[in-house]
Amino acid sequence: MKKVTMLDIAKMAGVSKATVSMVLSKHDQSISEETRNKVLSLAKEMNYIPNSLARSLSTKKTGTIGIILPDITNPFFSSIARAIEDEASLLGYNVIFCNTDNETNKEEKYIKLLISKLVDGVIFIAGGESENSVKMLKHNNIPFVLVDRYIDTHEEEYGVYALNKDGVLKGIEYLYNEGSRRIAFVEGPKTLEISRQRLDGYKYSMNKYGLYDERLVFSGDFTIDGGIKATESILQKTTNLDAIFYSNDAMALGGIKVLLKRGFKIPKDIRVLGFDNIELSEIFEPELTTIAQPIYEMGKQSCKLLIDVIDAADVENKQIYFETELIIRET
Amino acid sequence: MKKVTMLDIAKMAGVSKATVSMVLSKHDQSISEETRNKVLSLAKEMNYIPNSLARSLSTKKTGTIGIILPDITNPFFSSIARAIEDEASLLGYNVIFCNTDNETNKEEKYIKLLISKLVDGVIFIAGGESENSVKMLKHNNIPFVLVDRYIDTHEEEYGVYALNKDGVLKGIEYLYNEGSRRIAFVEGPKTLEISRQRLDGYKYSMNKYGLYDERLVFSGDFTIDGGIKATESILQKTTNLDAIFYSNDAMALGGIKVLLKRGFKIPKDIRVLGFDNIELSEIFEPELTTIAQPIYEMGKQSCKLLIDVIDAADVENKQIYFETELIIRET
Repeated sequence: MKKVTMLDIAKMAGVSKATVSMVLSKHDQSISEETRNKVLSLAKEMNYIPNSLARSLSTKKTGTIGIILPDITNPFFSSIARAIEDEASLLGYNVIFCNTDNETNKEEKYIKLLISKLVDGVIFIAGGESENSVKMLKHNNIPFVLVDRYIDTHEEEYGVYALNKDGVLKGIEYLYNEGSRRIAFVEGPKTLEISRQRLDGYKYSMNKYGLYDERLVFSGDFTIDGGIKATESILQKTTNLDAIFYSNDAMALGGIKVLLKRGFKIPKDIRVLGFDNIELSEIFEPELTTIAQPIYEMGKQSCKLLIDVIDAADVENKQIYFETELIIRET
Repeated sequence: MKKVTMLDIAKMAGVSKATVSMVLSKHDQSISEETRNKVLSLAKEMNYIPNSLARSLSTKKTGTIGIILPDITNPFFSSIARAIEDEASLLGYNVIFCNTDNETNKEEKYIKLLISKLVDGVIFIAGGESENSVKMLKHNNIPFVLVDRYIDTHEEEYGVYALNKDGVLKGIEYLYNEGSRRIAFVEGPKTLEISRQRLDGYKYSMNKYGLYDERLVFSGDFTIDGGIKATESILQKTTNLDAIFYSNDAMALGGIKVLLKRGFKIPKDIRVLGFDNIELSEIFEPELTTIAQPIYEMGKQSCKLLIDVIDAADVENKQIYFETELIIRET
C-alpha cells in the first residue's frame, strides 16, 4: 500500500488525472457537477492528502507556522506555545513545534527542518545568541518573530518581549517596602540576555538602596531542579536572609519546596518572590508572589505579528514590549 | 529575496545546475575536488536548504517523525514527548509536535498535515475513538504507534500502554491496608478508554471489599482545574471521607490545594492518592503518593517501536504493556 495519489482517484472514478487535478484545485468550471461530486467524494473516501509542496506551489502558502522553543516541559514555554496555537487556529493556521534544549546545533537543525517543510513563518524563542539560526531564516526569506528571548540584533528583527529589568525593580521595591533588607537573588543561565537583564535590575535597585552584596547572587538555570539546588546552596552559605528573589517561577517553586522541608515558615521567616506568573504559581501552597509577564498575551501578539508579516500587512512596530506586573499572593 | 535554490548556487559558482545537483546529492564522482568544494562551501554560506520533497524522493526517508498529542501544557504528555524526542535524537530522527486538545477535527487536520509534510511515521496519543485519524494514517501507509490512549481497534495496531485497571487495584489495596474505608474516586473524561479502565479498577476492588458506593464517584477531566472543582464538589456532598483517589496526578495536585486551603491535614485527616507519577508530584509539599506509570520508558519504547516499523525491522510484539507501581510518599 502507498500514499493515495490523484492517479488512484482518477482510475477509481474512470476519469483522467487532469480532471481530478482540476477538481481538487477548484479549476473545475469545465467539469460536470456529477464528475466533480464523484471525484470529491472518492478523494474523501480514499483519504487523499494533497502533497504539501504541490499545494504550496499553487497557493504560495502552506497555512503552517513553526514554533522553535527551548523545552516544552517548561510551563512558561508550553503556555506561550498554547497561546500561539490558539491564535493561529483562529486565524486559520496550523502549528508545528520543535524543541531545542537551548542547544545551538539542535536549533539550527530544526530551523533547517522547518524551512525544508515549507512553513510560512516561524516563531522563534532563541536558546542563545542564535546568529546562524537567524541568518538561515533571513537567507531563505522565512518571516519570523522572536519571542521572550532577546538576541544581539533584536532591534532589527520582529519581536515580542517583556521589560525584564523593570520587572525586577518592581520586585525589589516591593520587598524593600515590606521590610526585607538581606535579599538573595537566583539568576538564570548566564548565556541568556534575559538573565542579564534581570540580574542588572537586581544590582541596580539593591545599589540604589545601598544593599548590594555580590555574595547574595546565586547561579540558577530556570528549572525547578535548579531552584532546589540554588536554595540548598543559599542555606549552606548564608544566614539571616529576609527574602529570596528567584528570577523565574520554576526555580521559586523548587525553592519553596526546600524551604518548607527545612521548616521555614513562608513569608514569616523568609519571603519568596518569583518572575513569570506561570499557571502553577497559583496552584502551589503557599501561592507564589511573583512578577507577572503577560505570557498568554505575548504568545498571542507574536502570532498576530507573524501572520501580519506573512501577509505583508502594514506593521506599526517591529518590536512589542510588554510591562510586567507585581502579583502579591502568599509568599 | 527568496529561498536559495540550486540555480542560485550554480550561478554564483559559475557551474551548471546539474553539477550543483550532483555535488549536493553526493553523485559527484565525475566532478573535480575544487568544484565540489566550491559548491559545498557556497551552499553552506548561502544557507541552502534542500527541499524536503526532492530530498525524500531520492532517499525515500525524511528523517522526521511527528507526534500527535492532546495538550503540551499537560505535564504527562510533555514528559512523554520529551522521552520520544530524546530517543529519536539518539536514533537520528527529528521530531515535530502537534496539539489536538482532544478534538477530533483538530486531530484529523494535524494527521493530514503530518502526512502532507511527508513524515516517516507518527506517534499518536489519541484524543478519543479517533477512527478517521487511524484510517487516514493506514490509507496513506504511514507507520504509526499508539501511546497511552487505547482505541477500539488497539489490538490490531502498534501501541505502548500502561495496565490501568491493575494500577487502580494496587492503589485501593494500599488505601484499604492503611485503614481507609470511605474512599472517593475522581474519574477522567468519560470519552476515554483509560478513564473507563481506571474506573473499572475502582469498582472492582471496592466491590471486592464490600465498600462500593456509586455516590463516591465524582467527575473529572484530568486537569488541575478539574481536580479543584471535583474536590469542592466532594467536600460539599460528602463527609467523613478517609481518602480521595484521583485518577491522575494533575487532578490530585489541584485537590491537595483545595484540601490544604480548607484546613485538612494530609494524610492525617484524609489520604490522597494520584495516578501517573508526573515530575511535579514530587515537587509539591506534601509529596504525592501515586500509582506510577513508567512515563519516560513508555515514550522511549514507543519511539523505538515506531522506528523499527519504519525500518521494516522484525517486531516481536505489536503491543507493549507496562506494569504500574505504587510510590508511597507523604499523602
